[in-house]
Amino acid sequence: MLIVQKFGGTSVGDLERIQNVANRVSETRKAGNEVVVVVSAMSGETNKLVAYAEHFSSNPQKTELDMLLSSGERVTASLLAIALNEMGCKAVSMTGRKAGIITDNLHTKARIEEINPIAMRNALNEGQIVVVAGFQGVSAEGNVTTLGRGGSDLSAVAIAGALQADLCEIYTDVSGIFTTDPRIEPKAKKLNRISYDEMLELASLGAKVLQNRSVELAKKLNVNLVTRTSFSHEEGTLITKEENIMEKPLVSGIALDKNQARVSLRGVKDRPGIASEIFNKLANNNVNIDMIIQNVGHDGSTNIDFTVPKSDLNDAKNVVHAFLDSCDIKEESYDEDICKVSIVGVGMKSHTGVAAKAFSTMAAENINIHMISTSEIKVSMVIAEKYAELAVRSLHNAYRLDK
Amino acid sequence: MLIVQKFGGTSVGDLERIQNVANRVSETRKAGNEVVVVVSAMSGETNKLVAYAEHFSSNPQKTELDMLLSSGERVTASLLAIALNEMGCKAVSMTGRKAGIITDNLHTKARIEEINPIAMRNALNEGQIVVVAGFQGVSAEGNVTTLGRGGSDLSAVAIAGALQADLCEIYTDVSGIFTTDPRIEPKAKKLNRISYDEMLELASLGAKVLQNRSVELAKKLNVNLVTRTSFSHEEGTLITKEENIMEKPLVSGIALDKNQARVSLRGVKDRPGIASEIFNKLANNNVNIDMIIQNVGHDGSTNIDFTVPKSDLNDAKNVVHAFLDSCDIKEESYDEDICKVSIVGVGMKSHTGVAAKAFSTMAAENINIHMISTSEIKVSMVIAEKYAELAVRSLHNAYRLDK
Repeated sequence: MLIVQKFGGTSVGDLERIQNVANRVSETRKAGNEVVVVVSAMSGETNKLVAYAEHFSSNPQKTELDMLLSSGERVTASLLAIALNEMGCKAVSMTGRKAGIITDNLHTKARIEEINPIAMRNALNEGQIVVVAGFQGVSAEGNVTTLGRGGSDLSAVAIAGALQADLCEIYTDVSGIFTTDPRIEPKAKKLNRISYDEMLELASLGAKVLQNRSVELAKKLNVNLVTRTSFSHEEGTLITKEENIMEKPLVSGIALDKNQARVSLRGVKDRPGIASEIFNKLANNNVNIDMIIQNVGHDGSTNIDFTVPKSDLNDAKNVVHAFLDSCDIKEESYDEDICKVSIVGVGMKSHTGVAAKAFSTMAAENINIHMISTSEIKVSMVIAEKYAELAVRSLHNAYRLDK
Repeated sequence: MLIVQKFGGTSVGDLERIQNVANRVSETRKAGNEVVVVVSAMSGETNKLVAYAEHFSSNPQKTELDMLLSSGERVTASLLAIALNEMGCKAVSMTGRKAGIITDNLHTKARIEEINPIAMRNALNEGQIVVVAGFQGVSAEGNVTTLGRGGSDLSAVAIAGALQADLCEIYTDVSGIFTTDPRIEPKAKKLNRISYDEMLELASLGAKVLQNRSVELAKKLNVNLVTRTSFSHEEGTLITKEENIMEKPLVSGIALDKNQARVSLRGVKDRPGIASEIFNKLANNNVNIDMIIQNVGHDGSTNIDFTVPKSDLNDAKNVVHAFLDSCDIKEESYDEDICKVSIVGVGMKSHTGVAAKAFSTMAAENINIHMISTSEIKVSMVIAEKYAELAVRSLHNAYRLDK
């Protein structure tokens, strides 16, 4: 097999941990696999460099930041290659440039445009382990670029896609994806397999493990992604296409998002295009809208409710106030004490009654549901924030996710 | 003027010092000059990385070491560029690769083969300050290389040569080249100008400031080199070609080398080619020979005396013992308690009596001279080590170097 293994900052946090990583890579190699390793900077290193830059400027040039920040991964990559060679595993480190990772020129958050894997392929053919500095690439202009948060994961997924690797393993300090946050429900169980789409919907469960950008790229490139821990040999969670999941569970997991606020607009003027006007203005002000409910009140005027991330609430208020001033809206109200609970599972596509069970579970706990939205594989409910943990535990139990 | 300014590790040792460097570069730019800056890694950084590598292997791959060690200069270069931009000076950082520094592939001690200064020239034409990561280049194979000890100085001199810069300023914590070591003779004076050849002969005086490799390269490329301190605005010492030095001093400086040992061979067989045999064997064993004296003893056999660096003495002994075993030499003796005092000055070429004054100065202090060697611009004497400081002070005074 050809396996891409990615180790994040905590996994290479000090010299002993780098040695641990070398041991694990060496095992994989000695089991007869071809191995490409993608590494992050030692934990704390990137933050240190950012702090250095901020010492000199509150707004450093993004090209210079990329030159600066790309140095941390080079250090880890070369150290790991040295450790592997010392263990008798032939290994060679490569920068993003050398690995053929071509990006656009949006410095500090570049997108990978293309991977030219010739150097990696040649080294693999020579029996070498390839150690790639993650998080970085090179623009068409020949300047080093970085890929933004979670960039090393993107490097790993893109490389796995370019090399048509059998597996892309993302090693972190978390052992996989759980049915829900184990800090809320200790009976949460680790999932063996989950589809890309479920993973995307369960973002909040995997947020600390995998960013949606990486999952989306894996889906696009058809890369089998595994998240697992570098601190034990415990199996992780395979994120793969739905067809690869034999036994499709009705519900795979329960996600909780406390970072939501609700905006309620009452007495929205009943003229064509008013809703589109409001939401266009919100979009132009970079306010992310999640759920939307619209209904007609007793007086014939329209009520609109929607949710936004708490961090976008102030921007949303500014937009709304303009409509209040022009009398297009009669009343506004806001509620930050809400949360969103979501039930996700590919099995919903072919089974009925999943949503009904969610509602009855809430009813049994006397939890009022403010808003509901559904997709093919998800049911989301907005409820009062104080019920967040209770709702998660009740749903986890109702769908027997601990079994 | 086009000025190349090189700042070593202590000059960029922390963020405050990098800001000081930015201030100085900015002054040079604002005075109307074009500026290329070459920086080393922050002091201690390279040693830290080497220690990391040695944690994993006593003999790390040189290609990996270069990948590792080249990261330190990138950090300094980008930080300095950020600081300069913040001060309103347009600046761009460049790696060795981007700056067009092509080397051979002798990793960890590569030699610069060629500089393709197009990117630097373009940036200068746009009014930018160019900040180059020193100590590094790229091989024809496209791999990053490092230039070994003093590598950033070489980068600076080579860049100055390629850009035909008017001046190449090497900033350190020492304010220039002195007539002798001020720790030995407090009356030592800083030289304003000195020729390349004098500087090469005075290596021991400049050893902490400039390596001979850099002076040789400056001579070859006809680069006007200035050594000065980054901690004050004191003028430094200009190292230039002899024609640029109007008033040629009889003696420019007194150098002291305590790292010498004397090898004496008595009763060397009187057959043709024996001396050449001995010195060829020494050369093959990488023993550096400095001074050589040969004379014929009373019994018709030959005596040969030579000096070697103390670190080569054991290798020299091994070679000598083989000749003792084959009876080509009758007796050996060694003396480590010697030193070499040298008087250097381009003015000697056209003046007589310089050497005679040295000998009479030694005689006046009752210092016995063991060996003498002279060149066009130098007189060297081997004396007992215990007289080292006395000899330096007496000569400094005899040639009135404190005036």
